[in-house]
Amino acid sequence: MKNLYIIKIGGNILDNEISLERFLTDFVQLKGLKILVHGGGKLATELSARLNIETKMIQGRRITGSETLKVTTMVYAGWINKSIVAKLQSLNCNALGLSGVDGKCILAKKREIAEIDYGFAGDILPEGVNTGFLQNILEFGATPVIASITCDAKGQLLNTNADTIASVLATQLSKLYSTHLIYCFEKKGVLFDKNNENSVIEKIDSENYKKLKEEKIIVDGMIPKLDNAFKAKQEGVASVVIGHASDLLTILNSQNHAGTYIHN
Amino acid sequence: MKNLYIIKIGGNILDNEISLERFLTDFVQLKGLKILVHGGGKLATELSARLNIETKMIQGRRITGSETLKVTTMVYAGWINKSIVAKLQSLNCNALGLSGVDGKCILAKKREIAEIDYGFAGDILPEGVNTGFLQNILEFGATPVIASITCDAKGQLLNTNADTIASVLATQLSKLYSTHLIYCFEKKGVLFDKNNENSVIEKIDSENYKKLKEEKIIVDGMIPKLDNAFKAKQEGVASVVIGHASDLLTILNSQNHAGTYIHN
Repeated sequence: MKNLYIIKIGGNILDNEISLERFLTDFVQLKGLKILVHGGGKLATELSARLNIETKMIQGRRITGSETLKVTTMVYAGWINKSIVAKLQSLNCNALGLSGVDGKCILAKKREIAEIDYGFAGDILPEGVNTGFLQNILEFGATPVIASITCDAKGQLLNTNADTIASVLATQLSKLYSTHLIYCFEKKGVLFDKNNENSVIEKIDSENYKKLKEEKIIVDGMIPKLDNAFKAKQEGVASVVIGHASDLLTILNSQNHAGTYIHN
Repeated sequence: MKNLYIIKIGGNILDNEISLERFLTDFVQLKGLKILVHGGGKLATELSARLNIETKMIQGRRITGSETLKVTTMVYAGWINKSIVAKLQSLNCNALGLSGVDGKCILAKKREIAEIDYGFAGDILPEGVNTGFLQNILEFGATPVIASITCDAKGQLLNTNADTIASVLATQLSKLYSTHLIYCFEKKGVLFDKNNENSVIEKIDSENYKKLKEEKIIVDGMIPKLDNAFKAKQEGVASVVIGHASDLLTILNSQNHAGTYIHN
């Protein structure tokens, strides 16, 4: 099977023009089939503030009312997606901006209201990825750049976690490709000590993940990210790495080591 | 050659949820290959006002400063594009949202500053349409929905007139398809008397177009629209019609008559 790289770029990198440009310049060096997944970083929060729309976050997840849905769709699928695609095109990468809505490539449903009402938040349906459509796009030489907006079967737009999209894409596309999932963010990997950038945990398996959580070494927003990473690894993704956006090429060059590798 | 329908939907239809839904329901009835082109109507102006960004229009064209470029990209390529695509998907039309940036499908350059500085406004390059890319998308069964944002070769995003995009797409794709261009807006066609909806001019050729302009029957924003329409007709587009969005199916059914037909 051909290799397919699915790379999620974190919000803090998107927020910084220089980091983003550096990352995209590295991204185009990666030969072969690849997909870039992004959300929106602080821009949606900033735009909401300018429009006097309150931003509510619970456990790192945005509560998406109808006004916030408009803002996130505009920022993620509009400004950020098109800015990234235009930059990649100027670097001779034939990028194609998508959301889950386009070609119904990621079908979701509105998250059910349990203790928390997340509003217009999407949970991806089992088998919700239109793998045939993405395969068509990849095989004719385009690089999908996917903004984290999806919709349900009735056409309701839904704000959807970008880490989860990357994980589900990698899993469902692993039937067609040998998929490699790389979460790029502003840290060198999962850290033993969050104040020490050089304390990267080189690999984590499910057993020491449990231990690291019990010892409160892994906390907060890192837990859903690692849950997504483990789910992908357990469901057939060939490799899963979490690392710094500026280390993308080192991560891809298996001669060297960077980032945290996820093992079963 | 296969038929390809290129339909431009006007801003006033986009602004009204009921008109838009009715139009999209008709649009999905149209079998065969089709492309929908849209700009953004009043939403960009409204969002600019909420953000205290001044809207400047000269001869119906928006002056696009860097803040306005962000707003138009967010509104056109983000909210409106994804709302239309999600709705079409729910109606079983396999829509794919694009801008000119995606797959570099429409390459433009920043308009040169003459008497007026239009800011980040794009003029489409000769041969600027990536016809092979659009053909690939059409042939695998997707319906492109194109927002009127393009970029230049350096990746600079540019706000670009949607009427012109529709005209240039129809012209350049006429090498591959028998193309039919339909401008849908809030009037029944080009009117003899702008206050009388029933005064539709059934057809216009270049000779009586000249006369109608001299007699000030065709004025203002209708002139660039008709210039785009005539350019398309003169450069190989099989048919060009201007009509009401709610008459789309009547226009397509050549047994009946609706709208204004453009002749050489």
